[in-house]
Amino acid sequence: MSRIAYVNGRYVPHRDAMVHIEDRGYQFADGVYEVCEVRGGRIVDERRHLQRLQRSLAELRIREPMPAAALGVVLHETVCRNRVRDGLVYLQVTRGVARRDHAFPPSETVPSLVITARNVDRARGEQAAAEGIRVVTLPENRWPRVDIKSVSLLPNVLAKQTAREQGAREAWFVDEAGYVTEGASSNAWIVTEAGTVATRPADRGILRGISRAVLLDTIAALGLAFEERPFTVAEAYAAREAFVTAATQIVMPVVRIDDRPIGAGRPGPLALKLRQAFHGQSEFS
Amino acid sequence: MSRIAYVNGRYVPHRDAMVHIEDRGYQFADGVYEVCEVRGGRIVDERRHLQRLQRSLAELRIREPMPAAALGVVLHETVCRNRVRDGLVYLQVTRGVARRDHAFPPSETVPSLVITARNVDRARGEQAAAEGIRVVTLPENRWPRVDIKSVSLLPNVLAKQTAREQGAREAWFVDEAGYVTEGASSNAWIVTEAGTVATRPADRGILRGISRAVLLDTIAALGLAFEERPFTVAEAYAAREAFVTAATQIVMPVVRIDDRPIGAGRPGPLALKLRQAFHGQSEFS
Repeated sequence: MSRIAYVNGRYVPHRDAMVHIEDRGYQFADGVYEVCEVRGGRIVDERRHLQRLQRSLAELRIREPMPAAALGVVLHETVCRNRVRDGLVYLQVTRGVARRDHAFPPSETVPSLVITARNVDRARGEQAAAEGIRVVTLPENRWPRVDIKSVSLLPNVLAKQTAREQGAREAWFVDEAGYVTEGASSNAWIVTEAGTVATRPADRGILRGISRAVLLDTIAALGLAFEERPFTVAEAYAAREAFVTAATQIVMPVVRIDDRPIGAGRPGPLALKLRQAFHGQSEFS
Repeated sequence: MSRIAYVNGRYVPHRDAMVHIEDRGYQFADGVYEVCEVRGGRIVDERRHLQRLQRSLAELRIREPMPAAALGVVLHETVCRNRVRDGLVYLQVTRGVARRDHAFPPSETVPSLVITARNVDRARGEQAAAEGIRVVTLPENRWPRVDIKSVSLLPNVLAKQTAREQGAREAWFVDEAGYVTEGASSNAWIVTEAGTVATRPADRGILRGISRAVLLDTIAALGLAFEERPFTVAEAYAAREAFVTAATQIVMPVVRIDDRPIGAGRPGPLALKLRQAFHGQSEFS
């Protein structure tokens, strides 16, 4: 658990980390967030995460709470104060506190900024990767602007819970045409029968995952066959391998989708290779 | 402004009304809400609002924070402590505080309950009704479960802001087939050229508005011609009258939709009559 949280200018004990009931994040889901991996005490791909944060804020016209350089300092300070070596740092920005009214509050409203950090047992992640995870597919039911990393996550919550109740770790959303969009908190990938890695373009309908982008670099560096294109659930069932990417998952092999084992029903060699190679393309700060 | 807020068991000064940063309402929009009108110190249609709250909670499998009777007591106490005669009372329930993880937290997690109340200038509402409001239409872009009154309101926020920037007070969402679904924070109605009141069925795609239900009773009591059916934007442009309903709006005439004046471009007589008659079908507690 995060022992010290940064909340609107102050480092406070986790139990005292509070925001106002009229924070627009609480009443309207009017905010955005980022989660970065922390590895060996360093933040992974911070620059890319802060760039995406800037984009999310710009799309919602929420002011940046502070310049990116200052934000980097607070991220590192929060990691440091929580003595995080391997884990994650979470950052949330909302449009701030204002009397409840759907439309934007007065322009002088100060955005809220909350940052937490905690250790995560790296061995457990490696164990999960060695075993592979299960995924269930569900109809896409999110709004179209999932390219904005907003805290409007209720559909994702319900999808994850459905997955858990079916013994799975992740849910993949499937659009009306039968194509997988992405996971409830990850991007979705397959390795086709021909050995080609495939994932959906991030132009619309999915989040522009940072781990997704880093893995594209990894795939290029390894010279692997790759296609950026949507794939159907049927293709995923028939795939040689499947996996997901996310800052907290790195590259996580998928061994079962719904009631179908994928490939040999064990983590695929390409997924494991990509997991191993992943941090070679990451930036550490 | 609400001077005293009820927050998780305590009545606290508004400025000290805080929730934890890991409240799932803040991180996941994992909560629901209700807004009731307060009129002459009494809560309007409380029973129906609490019934809808129960339904929203059940759909999301969030525990009821307390029995309905106790909730009623707290609502009234909050209204009383804020000396609200004419205004509104706002109630929000979330799944509670837990370490961040999309899926539901342990079942012993206690839901959060926040209640605020404040006076609203009734004369201003009457003035708005006498002038009528403007509406803009926008493509529907919310998730399909808008029948659940959740705080996942980011699309509504953006729609309201677009309306405001175009000089309008409300935005009407329009589905892919060209039918109006509902407003960003109200239900949508027209009076057709033939004099029939029409509004969309609340079986799916819209919220089961309490004011909508009360107005259906009012329409029946007055013996007005009525059709529960979807209507297109084109029909709305050509309508004799248009109006919206919401607990904070009662019946609010619409005099312009996009760049088209509706009817004579003044509040319609039927809308004003329904506004006058509305509270005859309400329950006061």
